[in-house]
Amino acid sequence: MDGASQSTACVMIIGNEILSGKTQDANLQFLGVELAKLGIKLVEARVVRDDPDMIIAALNECRAKYTYVFTTGGIGPTHDDITAECVARAFGVPLTLDADAVECLRRGRAELNEARLKMARVPAGATLVDNSVSHAPGFRIGNVFVYAGIPAIMRAMFTASIPALTRGAQILSASVDVYAREGDLAEPLERIALAHPEVEIGSYPFAREGRFGASLVVRGTDAAAVQQVLEEVVRAMVALAGEAAVSR
Amino acid sequence: MDGASQSTACVMIIGNEILSGKTQDANLQFLGVELAKLGIKLVEARVVRDDPDMIIAALNECRAKYTYVFTTGGIGPTHDDITAECVARAFGVPLTLDADAVECLRRGRAELNEARLKMARVPAGATLVDNSVSHAPGFRIGNVFVYAGIPAIMRAMFTASIPALTRGAQILSASVDVYAREGDLAEPLERIALAHPEVEIGSYPFAREGRFGASLVVRGTDAAAVQQVLEEVVRAMVALAGEAAVSR
Repeated sequence: MDGASQSTACVMIIGNEILSGKTQDANLQFLGVELAKLGIKLVEARVVRDDPDMIIAALNECRAKYTYVFTTGGIGPTHDDITAECVARAFGVPLTLDADAVECLRRGRAELNEARLKMARVPAGATLVDNSVSHAPGFRIGNVFVYAGIPAIMRAMFTASIPALTRGAQILSASVDVYAREGDLAEPLERIALAHPEVEIGSYPFAREGRFGASLVVRGTDAAAVQQVLEEVVRAMVALAGEAAVSR
Repeated sequence: MDGASQSTACVMIIGNEILSGKTQDANLQFLGVELAKLGIKLVEARVVRDDPDMIIAALNECRAKYTYVFTTGGIGPTHDDITAECVARAFGVPLTLDADAVECLRRGRAELNEARLKMARVPAGATLVDNSVSHAPGFRIGNVFVYAGIPAIMRAMFTASIPALTRGAQILSASVDVYAREGDLAEPLERIALAHPEVEIGSYPFAREGRFGASLVVRGTDAAAVQQVLEEVVRAMVALAGEAAVSR
């Protein structure tokens, strides 16, 4: 894989509700798929509590390490929404009332009270990220993109940010399902993986209607290489388990 | 909240498939709910790639920081299953073939080949964690519990580990749904949150059938305090939005 020039990313999911199990995160999978399409390698994700010190420490570590950091959650009007304040502290800048953000909020029908105005306070130097779903914008400061946690809004904000991202070669994947046990297919699969360091090969076991199998996935930025290695995997699996056990 | 004596935990989800978006993680929510029942505070979660240096660094950081670390994924027989090896390296001990683990694997019907024997290699000093679903065991070394990624197996392994965990006071939660906008309920809710630092209050917005609302959650270890603060929240919300807007 082309590591030298590829942009990298970290997703930071902010919110006690994810760690308490109240809410199932639905944003990481979306961002994983979309970043791969843009050729940006999602290297890690973190889920952190609504704790300023933890958020600030994680943010400063990750924004130094990766090309981009995308945060989700904690930018609403309630007392437990502390993301903007934490981002400002991480960057060592004040929170300021953004006139354009106030304008966005005015477009909502609801009264612009003190709590709602909180959503127009962004770190000094930040630029707004459009929210086409509701009214409160996200924002970007440096390499950090700050989004809402509600999936529909997060998706709209990510889409609005795409022009600002440096794309790399799209990360492509191709896969085949094999009805064989991982313990049996491991050896031929490893032989192929060792011979092809230019792609990444993963094996993900499943059980369907009482039959064991694994989804074998080849990923890489070179379409021809991905396709060629997949063919090699298919041939090896047919040799191992028979034509009927291999489902593309 | 009782911070001094409470055990803390970190969940480490290992696997490229979660970060590529191929697979939706289903383990974090389960562990969040179950750890709260045991009175163990889940402080953070990380999703890391199948990259030895990253896994080892994250593991050493988190096992020093938290009472427990629970890892999921990467303990199968294929080449991309590298968790056991990384845990051994993080602890600075060799991987050794565990006779009891070999015995567990023998109970499976499948031939005990080299790939399957890999699942019986655990860090020296580790103790096995039962797997009541299939045959390959998980293991525990120090404060690190190493589980499979397949949810049914992970759940069985976690259940088998419970006797080894130091429980704290159960973290209780009570909630009420309010059909009001967060921007309107933020102020009365914050007043209650500031008056009751002994509990944690969260507001999680939703839209249902075109109506906006928020789920307000009170969490803490003192049942009476949780219930009393919830009643206070209910009264404040009825005062704000009317009886009909509050749904328990």
